[in-house]
Amino acid sequence: MSSLYINKLAVVGVGLIGGSLSLALKASGAVGHVVGIGRGQANLDKALELRVVDSVTRDLAAGVADADVVFLATPVLTLGPVACEAMPHLKPGAILTDGGSVKQAVIDQIEPFLRADVHFVPGHPIAGTEHSGAEAAFASLYQGRRSILTPTPRTDPAALALVQAMWEAAGCEVVVMDVEKHDRVLAAISHLPHMVAYALVNAVGAYDRYEENILEYSAGGFRDFTRIASSDPTMWRDIALTNREALVEMMGQFEAFFRELKDDVARGDDERLFEFFRRSKESRDAIL
Amino acid sequence: MSSLYINKLAVVGVGLIGGSLSLALKASGAVGHVVGIGRGQANLDKALELRVVDSVTRDLAAGVADADVVFLATPVLTLGPVACEAMPHLKPGAILTDGGSVKQAVIDQIEPFLRADVHFVPGHPIAGTEHSGAEAAFASLYQGRRSILTPTPRTDPAALALVQAMWEAAGCEVVVMDVEKHDRVLAAISHLPHMVAYALVNAVGAYDRYEENILEYSAGGFRDFTRIASSDPTMWRDIALTNREALVEMMGQFEAFFRELKDDVARGDDERLFEFFRRSKESRDAIL
Repeated sequence: MSSLYINKLAVVGVGLIGGSLSLALKASGAVGHVVGIGRGQANLDKALELRVVDSVTRDLAAGVADADVVFLATPVLTLGPVACEAMPHLKPGAILTDGGSVKQAVIDQIEPFLRADVHFVPGHPIAGTEHSGAEAAFASLYQGRRSILTPTPRTDPAALALVQAMWEAAGCEVVVMDVEKHDRVLAAISHLPHMVAYALVNAVGAYDRYEENILEYSAGGFRDFTRIASSDPTMWRDIALTNREALVEMMGQFEAFFRELKDDVARGDDERLFEFFRRSKESRDAIL
Repeated sequence: MSSLYINKLAVVGVGLIGGSLSLALKASGAVGHVVGIGRGQANLDKALELRVVDSVTRDLAAGVADADVVFLATPVLTLGPVACEAMPHLKPGAILTDGGSVKQAVIDQIEPFLRADVHFVPGHPIAGTEHSGAEAAFASLYQGRRSILTPTPRTDPAALALVQAMWEAAGCEVVVMDVEKHDRVLAAISHLPHMVAYALVNAVGAYDRYEENILEYSAGGFRDFTRIASSDPTMWRDIALTNREALVEMMGQFEAFFRELKDDVARGDDERLFEFFRRSKESRDAIL
């Protein structure tokens, strides 16, 4: 059994990611008190009503003041401003960590403002649903999922170990990874698929040759396929802006494969088409 | 209540599509006897054991001989040869229909060989799972799904009405559609998404910068997204080959949207990115 115990955890942004961490740690007895911090009173009220957190406040300075661990779970582009605003109010020795989907951009936003007596551990739990807000949070979101931590040369080993224990208490397998590798791997397996889904839905939606909504003819496969194209536009704008270089590289790689396939279709090259589809099925089946 | 009753139905290809039609019609009492016809004895034995059909045979001529309706549910490129081989053995007035995902190519394969005393009704039930074979068949596959019929100038109105009643008895809403429109709409909402999924899995799978299988890091969204990339390679090769023109057009349309998105990411155009994602979410949410 883990000996992790966090007296007070502050969660900034009580949505699916932050709220579920709170619920998971409360369920495993790894935390004493969780304060939820946010800007919208309605969502905070809901979080308190559903007992997602133990107390709530819209006052960032007061909320983080005596927290041992502060978890930032806001959209990627607001992590820097929030960390900067909270910094003077953190207690000495406090650990600051985050759940941003992009890591280099977050580190670049936060480390220049980091106090010498505060520890920062950049992180990214790979979990989620298409829902958001405190109501979407649930204690088992992280069970069996991976959480990636990307320490920098400035990251304190003891703080890293504590954040690792925190995610393990929430049910995650923790992977410690180089920052650049994180951003490239996520560009490939998460950010690129979202771009593809968004482009697909827009391309099909714009196909109005028959002056009716042909999306209505779509069957199960297409609906599953485009579920992720209904994800939050602000979140994905931020991810695209902050992981631009790796994402553009992966989009270029996808374009090359798609063009190869289109050429094979146009030429009616049956052997190459079969091999293209067979290879995809093989690598996809291997991850099941 | 429908007055449809088919004395004897022959299903050629007792897999998910053909087997499920048999089960649905048997469940609704719309058919007397269903004979399953196929090439593989093991699958036919399984179909009989699971009571998907009432009898089985590998002899196409004998199987179709006294059938009132013959449903062809083989891969698209074999529909023509199978129809041609069955033709001399059909009884006068028999109705031949199919479930092929592409319609013009199937009509071109079958109509030149059509006997004057046999009726052909081209069709396409829009339903499926990623599973195949007689074991995958289930009676409710077609409940609430659409089945598209694409009559030609040669199609007999009474035969069309009977096949429509058959699909309605299986649970479908039937849509009668122009052949060319069917092939273009399906290219957009089914064939294109499959091409995109196949290309995505291959592009990500080929990204070996870190000499490990990065697909292992994929979370729920990507796995759902690429489920259709594990569909049968032979089936999709046939569809790509037989709906080439419409598919290449839609692939070009997708490429243009994807390139626009990539350019917006590369330029870091936050307003256009937000609008692109918002528009996709809006049209996707509208079909739920």
